[in-house]
Amino acid sequence: MRDAYHEELDALTERLVEMTRLVRSAISRATTALLDADIHLAESVISQDEEVNRIFAEVEASIFDLMARQQPVAVDLRMIIAALRMGTDLERMGDLAEHVAKIARLRHPDSAIPPEVRSTILEMGQIAERLVTKTGSCIASRDVESALELESDDDAMDKLHRRLFKVLMAPDWKYGVEPAIDVTLIGRYYERYADHAVRVAHDVVYLVTGSRPQDTSAF
Amino acid sequence: MRDAYHEELDALTERLVEMTRLVRSAISRATTALLDADIHLAESVISQDEEVNRIFAEVEASIFDLMARQQPVAVDLRMIIAALRMGTDLERMGDLAEHVAKIARLRHPDSAIPPEVRSTILEMGQIAERLVTKTGSCIASRDVESALELESDDDAMDKLHRRLFKVLMAPDWKYGVEPAIDVTLIGRYYERYADHAVRVAHDVVYLVTGSRPQDTSAF
Repeated sequence: MRDAYHEELDALTERLVEMTRLVRSAISRATTALLDADIHLAESVISQDEEVNRIFAEVEASIFDLMARQQPVAVDLRMIIAALRMGTDLERMGDLAEHVAKIARLRHPDSAIPPEVRSTILEMGQIAERLVTKTGSCIASRDVESALELESDDDAMDKLHRRLFKVLMAPDWKYGVEPAIDVTLIGRYYERYADHAVRVAHDVVYLVTGSRPQDTSAF
Repeated sequence: MRDAYHEELDALTERLVEMTRLVRSAISRATTALLDADIHLAESVISQDEEVNRIFAEVEASIFDLMARQQPVAVDLRMIIAALRMGTDLERMGDLAEHVAKIARLRHPDSAIPPEVRSTILEMGQIAERLVTKTGSCIASRDVESALELESDDDAMDKLHRRLFKVLMAPDWKYGVEPAIDVTLIGRYYERYADHAVRVAHDVVYLVTGSRPQDTSAF
């Protein structure tokens, strides 16, 4: 049987996994809101980001409480440090999903996404979801191997991000500057979302092994 | 006289202040590199980001070491948690300065900055420098009042960021999509740089008072 202290650490893990589910749902709805110019979906992402922030505040409070009361060492201490960093990144992922939703809302009833970049944005959304799903599994399972595998999805995201710029800068881009700015920002949000998901997975590696893989960022 | 333990905490503070100096110099040189299309300056920012990362790795290592050996409580524990977060934000500010420099390098020998947005970018660079200078002083002095004053500089940055978009979207913008994308990303980098500086200052407030002001982000 686990003691109360380790039950608290388990609860912390569960809260982080819950955050991955919430920010996954957020980016999924934000992508649909963007592609379908769905204002209600966009509003739901924006209003529900508060929930992610609330859980993160609880995570922070319980981390500080655990540290003060238990003076954790070794792997427990790593768990707490990692949890703090993971929570910070997950909270930011919620913000980025919200940023995407805000652009959908800003351009409603139009779509911010011209047909030429629709499929790329759709794929970026799918990879973002896949990444955060895997990140959630990594947190729950503490599986270092699968945490390291996230790199390939992140590479795929970077490739899509570059493809996006190619379309925007092509001579036949006919939508002018405003949609180009929207798509530039949206692309950046997805790319950052993916980077944060990888950082969370790297913190699982740190938690298990005591050292973190070098973070790489496309630009 | 301070004991060895508190000397280590002081050293941690010094390392963080040193990080503020390095990322200040980085954003200052990146701004000049951008405005003057100075490739050597751009290269210096890019190559010297390694130094920021190295110091942050040392900060992380010394934090973990302190926690394992000393089991800090109360204000010392807060110092360590805050230092970890501050280091993370400062490291990211170095990355953002590097991103600005990379756009300068990418467009060399041309300038990425059309004349119409020159003064706005210059001001954004100046505010970024002012913010991080103040952040450095806050870390050194642990002055809560001045930490809270950073908000007004951050508001000024957000205003400039909005002004940038206005220029880009004006009907008389004659530079087309590519420079609009560059300026959009550059604007975003400065705005994020400022947000991170404010977060660091907020961690000084947390360190002193035990609670952190609500972080606000323009978008």
